Amino acid sequence: MKKLYKKVLKQITPTKKEKNLEKKIFKEIEEKIMKIKGRHSCVNWCGSSARDTHLRNDRDLDLFIMFDTELSEKELEKKGLKIGKMVFKGQKWEKAYSQHPYIRGIYKGFDVEIVPSYKVNSGTEIKSAVDRTPFHNKYILNKIKEKQKQEVRLLKQFMKGIDAYGADLKNCSMPGYALELLIIHYETFENAIKEISKWNKGKIILFENAKEKHAEQFKGAPLIIIDPVDAHRNVASALSNEQFQRLVYAAKRFLGNPNEKFFFKEKTKKLTKKELKNELEKRELIAIKSIFPKKILPDLFWGQLRRFLKKSETHLKEHDFIVERSHLWSDEKEIVFIFTLREKNLQKIKTITGPHATDKENSKKFLDKKRKIVAGPYIKDGRITIDIERKETQSKKVLENFLKKMQKQEKEALQIFCKKAKVLDEKEIIKHYKGEFAEYLTRYIKGKEIFE
Amino acid sequence: MKKLYKKVLKQITPTKKEKNLEKKIFKEIEEKIMKIKGRHSCVNWCGSSARDTHLRNDRDLDLFIMFDTELSEKELEKKGLKIGKMVFKGQKWEKAYSQHPYIRGIYKGFDVEIVPSYKVNSGTEIKSAVDRTPFHNKYILNKIKEKQKQEVRLLKQFMKGIDAYGADLKNCSMPGYALELLIIHYETFENAIKEISKWNKGKIILFENAKEKHAEQFKGAPLIIIDPVDAHRNVASALSNEQFQRLVYAAKRFLGNPNEKFFFKEKTKKLTKKELKNELEKRELIAIKSIFPKKILPDLFWGQLRRFLKKSETHLKEHDFIVERSHLWSDEKEIVFIFTLREKNLQKIKTITGPHATDKENSKKFLDKKRKIVAGPYIKDGRITIDIERKETQSKKVLENFLKKMQKQEKEALQIFCKKAKVLDEKEIIKHYKGEFAEYLTRYIKGKEIFE
Repeated sequence: MKKLYKKVLKQITPTKKEKNLEKKIFKEIEEKIMKIKGRHSCVNWCGSSARDTHLRNDRDLDLFIMFDTELSEKELEKKGLKIGKMVFKGQKWEKAYSQHPYIRGIYKGFDVEIVPSYKVNSGTEIKSAVDRTPFHNKYILNKIKEKQKQEVRLLKQFMKGIDAYGADLKNCSMPGYALELLIIHYETFENAIKEISKWNKGKIILFENAKEKHAEQFKGAPLIIIDPVDAHRNVASALSNEQFQRLVYAAKRFLGNPNEKFFFKEKTKKLTKKELKNELEKRELIAIKSIFPKKILPDLFWGQLRRFLKKSETHLKEHDFIVERSHLWSDEKEIVFIFTLREKNLQKIKTITGPHATDKENSKKFLDKKRKIVAGPYIKDGRITIDIERKETQSKKVLENFLKKMQKQEKEALQIFCKKAKVLDEKEIIKHYKGEFAEYLTRYIKGKEIFE
Repeated sequence: MKKLYKKVLKQITPTKKEKNLEKKIFKEIEEKIMKIKGRHSCVNWCGSSARDTHLRNDRDLDLFIMFDTELSEKELEKKGLKIGKMVFKGQKWEKAYSQHPYIRGIYKGFDVEIVPSYKVNSGTEIKSAVDRTPFHNKYILNKIKEKQKQEVRLLKQFMKGIDAYGADLKNCSMPGYALELLIIHYETFENAIKEISKWNKGKIILFENAKEKHAEQFKGAPLIIIDPVDAHRNVASALSNEQFQRLVYAAKRFLGNPNEKFFFKEKTKKLTKKELKNELEKRELIAIKSIFPKKILPDLFWGQLRRFLKKSETHLKEHDFIVERSHLWSDEKEIVFIFTLREKNLQKIKTITGPHATDKENSKKFLDKKRKIVAGPYIKDGRITIDIERKETQSKKVLENFLKKMQKQEKEALQIFCKKAKVLDEKEIIKHYKGEFAEYLTRYIKGKEIFE
C-alpha cells in the first residue's frame, strides 16, 4: 500500500518551486497592503497553502486583512474592499460575498482572495463567520505534525477522486479544514479510511474542549465534527446524508481494493448513440433541460436547484407517477434534471381506496369529497373504493404544466430556470446527448460510482 | 316504511296452499319411513320450512331420521342411506356429503334431504355436526314469536337482495339460522338493520348461556354469533370480512334510502361492445378463463378457487405488477378470474434498493446474492442500489407461465382448472363478452354494488 501512496503523493505534492512562488507572492501582496494607511494591523495568510496541506496546482491564496474591532461593519467593508481593489490594480478582479463582501481576483496566475476581518482574541469572540478563519489556521498549524501534512494531502485527493470534496452546496461534501481535523484525530490517511469505513449515521468527532452535549444541537446530521475553535459549529454541516453514505461506502471499497482510481477519476467511456437508444428502450427516462442563470451566486443557486428537483419529483408523485431515480446535472451553463419513471404514461382510470365500510364517519368524509366518480363506490378488501378519471396521464404534460405554474410562483433565478426550461422525452434526450452531459448520462445509466 | 315491508312480504311469504302442501309431503314421507323397520325412533322436520321462516318457492324440506346413539357410525350411515333411497324409489336422487353421507332428491317438486342423525339429549352431547340441526330447530321454535317470523323473512330477503345470504363458500355469507337468531336478538327487521349499520369488525352477539369468554376462541372473525345450542360454534363463521363490510355498508345505505332494490336485485344494463371497448381503453384488464370441473362438490371448490385467485394475484405482485383489483366469477360452468393492473407490461429494467451503505453486514449480503446486475451498485438516497433486468415483462406471459407451473403442482380439480385455462388479453375479453359474464363484467367495470 505504501507504494500506492508514494505514487499518488508524487503527483499531488506541490513542488518546492511552487511553494516558493506562493511565499513570494504573499510577501509582495503583504507589502502592498501594509503600505496603505488605515486601521489594519497585519495581513494573515490563511487556507491550505498557508498550512502546507494544499494540493499541487491549487493556486489559491486566502489573505485576511486584520482590522481593529472598534471599526463599524460598514467601515470595515468599505476600507477592506478599497484595499482589495488596490491590490488588483490593473488585474482582473470581482466582488464576491461570504458573510461580508470581499475582493477576489487573479494575481500572477493565482486565485487570490482579500478578505477584511476583525482581529479578535479567540474563536468564541468572533463577530462574523470570516473572522473564524484565522483561528482555524492557528489551530491546525499548532496541532498538525510535519509528516501528517502528506496524510492530509492523501485524504484530500481521495475525497476529490470520489467527488466528496468541498463544502459548497454544489458538492454537499467535506471542506479541507474538516479533512485536516480528521488527520489530527485519526493520525494517518490509512487509519482515517479504516475508521471512516466503520462510521454510522450520526457519527460524532470531538476535540479537546468539546463535549458530547455540544453535538446535541446538530442532531440529525450524518456527521458531526465540533469545531475546536467554536463549539457552536459543525465543520461537516454541508455534508449531505447521500454523500456521507457514499463516503463510507467508498472507504470500504477502497480497503477491499486499494487503487489509484479512488484518487484520480477515470474518464467515463461514453455510450454510443446506438447503445444509448438501446438502453433507453429498457427504461422510462424523462428530463427537464434549462439554463444556469448568470448573475447569481452559484453556491446559493445549487441549493435552490436541489430543492426544486425534489419539488418536481414530489409533483410527479402527486400525479401518481412512481419515480425510481432522479438526479441533477449542471456544468453551470446548462442544467438537466433527469427522472427514471416506472411508466411514461398512466391509465386514464385511477382507483382510490377509502376507509373501512364500517368506519361511518370517515366513509362519509371520503364520499363527500368533490370528485367525478366514474365507477363505484364499491367494497374492495372491506374498504370503500371508487374509480376516478385522471386529468393528465402523460408525464411530459405533467412536468410542462408544473413548470408553467412554477414560473408564476418562484422568484428570480428559479423563475428564469422555469421560463427557459424544456421537458425532454427520450427522443429529445438522444438529440441532446453530447459533451459533458453525455458523459454524465452514461454514468447515470450505468449506475456506477466513479470509483468503481 | 311499513308500506315497503308489506309490499316485499306480499311477494316473499309462502302461500297457505304452499304451506299445506309442505305439511302433506312431510306426513307422506314420515309415514313411509316409520313403516320401515330399524333402529330409528322418529322423523324430525327441520330447516326453515319447519320453522315457518322460509321464503316463497324455497321448496326445501330437511328431514332428519333419528337413530339410537348406540348404533356405530358405520351402521348409522348404512341404514340411513338405505331408508333415504327407499323414500325416493322411482324418483331422482343422489348421495351427498356433509359430515355423513346422506340422500338428497326431488320429491313431488320439492328438494328433499333425508339425513340420518343420532338422537342425543342436548346440543353439547352431539356426535357430529348434523346432530346439531334438530336442536337449532327446537331453539328457534321455542324463542321466536309468531309475528317475528315475518321479520326473519324480510331479513332473509334483504340478505338475498344484497348477495349476502348463504353459509356456503360460494357466498361467504350468513346462514338462515344466523338470521333467525338476529331477529330473536334485535326483535324486528328494522331494528336489526339499524344495529347492523352500527356494527364494527369483531362484533359479538351472545345468547342466554354464552359469555364473552366464549367469543375468544373466534378472535379475528368479523362477526361472532355464539350458537346458543353449542358455545363452541360461531354461527357466522362463514362470513368473510369483505361480506361483513358490504353488509354493514348496505344496511347504512338502506337506512338512507329504503328501497325495494335492496330486496330484489335489479337487472344490470349491460354495456354494449362498443362501450366496453371504450372503457377498456382507460384501464388495463387481464383475465384467466377456465372451466368449472364436474364431479367435485361445488362448495369445496369455491374455497379452492378463492385461494387460487389470491395465489395468482400474489404471483403477479411477485413479478412487480401492481394489482389494483381482482375478482372471481363463475356460473359453475365457466370460471373467470379478472385482474385490473396498473400496467399491462413492465420496463425491462428494475431498480432494487438495498440497505444503507453504512450497514456493512446487510450490504454484503445484498451484493452477494446471485443476480445479473446491469447497472450499479450506486448510492441512492443513501442506500445501495442496483438495476437488474426482468426475465418477463408481459403480464400475459407471467400468468401463462404461472398456470403451466401450477398444473404440475396443484391436484385434482385445480389441476383441471389450470390445464383448461387460457389467459385473455383485452381483445379476447371483448370476444368473450356475452351472457351472464357480460352482465358480471359490466358490474365489475361500473364498480356498483348491486343495491346501488
